[in-house]
Amino acid sequence: MDEFKVTPWEVSGKVDYAKLIERFGTKRIDAALLEKIKRHTKDLHPYLRRQIFFSHRDLDAVLKRREEGGDFFLYTGRGPSGGMHVGHLVPLMFTKWLQEKFKVDLYIQITDDEKFLMRDLSLEETRKFAYDNIADIVALGFDPKRTHIFVNTEYAKTLYNIGIQVARNITTSTNKAVFGFTDSSNMGISFFPAMQMAPCFLPRGKDGEKLQCLIPAAIDQDDYWRPARDVAPKLGFPKPAQVHSKFFPSLLGMDAKMSSSDPRSSIFLTDSPEEVRKKVMRYAFSGGRDTVEEQRKLGADLERDVSYQWLRFFEEDDRKLKKIGDDYSSGGMLTGEIKGLLADNLNAFLKGHQKAREKAKGRAEKLMLRD
Amino acid sequence: MDEFKVTPWEVSGKVDYAKLIERFGTKRIDAALLEKIKRHTKDLHPYLRRQIFFSHRDLDAVLKRREEGGDFFLYTGRGPSGGMHVGHLVPLMFTKWLQEKFKVDLYIQITDDEKFLMRDLSLEETRKFAYDNIADIVALGFDPKRTHIFVNTEYAKTLYNIGIQVARNITTSTNKAVFGFTDSSNMGISFFPAMQMAPCFLPRGKDGEKLQCLIPAAIDQDDYWRPARDVAPKLGFPKPAQVHSKFFPSLLGMDAKMSSSDPRSSIFLTDSPEEVRKKVMRYAFSGGRDTVEEQRKLGADLERDVSYQWLRFFEEDDRKLKKIGDDYSSGGMLTGEIKGLLADNLNAFLKGHQKAREKAKGRAEKLMLRD
Repeated sequence: MDEFKVTPWEVSGKVDYAKLIERFGTKRIDAALLEKIKRHTKDLHPYLRRQIFFSHRDLDAVLKRREEGGDFFLYTGRGPSGGMHVGHLVPLMFTKWLQEKFKVDLYIQITDDEKFLMRDLSLEETRKFAYDNIADIVALGFDPKRTHIFVNTEYAKTLYNIGIQVARNITTSTNKAVFGFTDSSNMGISFFPAMQMAPCFLPRGKDGEKLQCLIPAAIDQDDYWRPARDVAPKLGFPKPAQVHSKFFPSLLGMDAKMSSSDPRSSIFLTDSPEEVRKKVMRYAFSGGRDTVEEQRKLGADLERDVSYQWLRFFEEDDRKLKKIGDDYSSGGMLTGEIKGLLADNLNAFLKGHQKAREKAKGRAEKLMLRD
Repeated sequence: MDEFKVTPWEVSGKVDYAKLIERFGTKRIDAALLEKIKRHTKDLHPYLRRQIFFSHRDLDAVLKRREEGGDFFLYTGRGPSGGMHVGHLVPLMFTKWLQEKFKVDLYIQITDDEKFLMRDLSLEETRKFAYDNIADIVALGFDPKRTHIFVNTEYAKTLYNIGIQVARNITTSTNKAVFGFTDSSNMGISFFPAMQMAPCFLPRGKDGEKLQCLIPAAIDQDDYWRPARDVAPKLGFPKPAQVHSKFFPSLLGMDAKMSSSDPRSSIFLTDSPEEVRKKVMRYAFSGGRDTVEEQRKLGADLERDVSYQWLRFFEEDDRKLKKIGDDYSSGGMLTGEIKGLLADNLNAFLKGHQKAREKAKGRAEKLMLRD
């Protein structure tokens, strides 16, 4: 019995990522695969170097096909249940890097239907969150010629037409087994997986070309891709490929639950510099020692220190990160200092992001797909 | 235990309509209600006079609201799994009469998604059948200013947006209990009921006015309307009202199964006059006696005679129908004669229908709703 749980709607317990690879039947992104990626991309994104994107399915096949002149497209998404926090950017920033390196089309699904079906929110509220989130996404600077964003309720004709083709090939018993639906689930959410799988099978261009898609996402989304891969051959598509990330930790601790309803647990993209500094200083779980003396003598536990772990996501410079880690774990650096570094890093990022976000509002419209 | 079964996908056993009213919790269309209808319509459609439309929910409330100056709209549909036969016209002809009498809007849903999910048909095939059926429907001559037809896969954005609001309010266990879905049902068909319920909740006009709908349909569709009525108040709509028809019998016998795959069991709207006559003469189950002598002496059993029963659907003149019934049941008329009368009646109707069908193809486009 594993004592942790990972589903699209619940992550609990201390996640053992090696076990998750076994449980889901995925593959580790190992040194050999990193080498293969590098042949295409020249350098490696920090998330690859640091094993934040750690698992995959068929990424090797995607690269091989590419070497033979074939193409693929990227697909990722966001569930608009509220404002976005910095952790939500992780798969998106990595996706942006992949798009820059491979110059491929990207589809971003905003699942307002899912949030409407799962939460106590109106369609007006989920749509408002959708466009709020889209501003943040566009602000990241995706290639405007190759990026397509859609809100499910606005693209439902296209998605439903593909969704029923997916759904015809999945029995209720498989659906229940994979997603854990019960008799008390509403009859809408149990169809929703077909809508999230649908973009894997978007035919492209006039000829309806059937390209392979590559999905960068946190590994809790994997439930969707296993049945999607089973269905793919029946729809004449290559099996969707995935790269999976580890979870972005709560500010309150490595095993604490990240909760949108608890603003202490994360930094929102709209937080002011003062709020950011206050939250980090007050709430970031420390792996440092109880007293300055102990910290100087024994050093911090980097594995449990959220500030250090967050810097692994946001400090791009490996040498800087290593120096911080070395100093902090050896006692040369105190908790207040690493927290200050994290707050500086986040505020520098957010300053640029918040400016970009304002400009993005006007630019988003051009990227939208609607029926 | 009742020994008959009535669901949207299966009708079997000898249907006891009085028991069905109890089982479904509907009301009989009685003499008092017929009088109320007549106050609006002046005359009564033969299907009302003959108790072919025999059951209802809230028809009295619809009439009352109308008397108080309120409005309603009509909604009916067709599942495009093949060419239409004469029995498929029954609810449509009655709907046409209602529209003429009440001058109200009518929405006609073509459920190509359902047929795709339930049958071994491609989306191309179900769409082909959809437009073939639409030609037959338009040929009936609905008011072009007040009639709106949509094919589900082409109107899926509108329907899905309403469908998720319906679906959020129905649990999987209710859905299974009402429709008999099992773990081997595919995950698409178990969402489909939300798509069939959706048009009950089409907001109308700029203000999104929420009118009551009245659904004329065979009583096997009733499964959809019970949960739709439960959901209505949650969406701020009046409960959808219904009028239910009895089933149109197979040519092969009153209790025989009507099967689209057995062309002997019905008359298709595209059958030639020769085919019609041949089918009626050869296959119409006879309630007459084995020999001419016995028929002359004992007369026919009208209840079991399909030719007579079909004439109840197609001979509008009550006196003519009564005379045929009297003559045939008393032995004055032979089976060959009543079959001849039925063939004449059907061929006269089909001659006009087939001409109208050709013209309808050009006119249909103006009635279509698409996202």
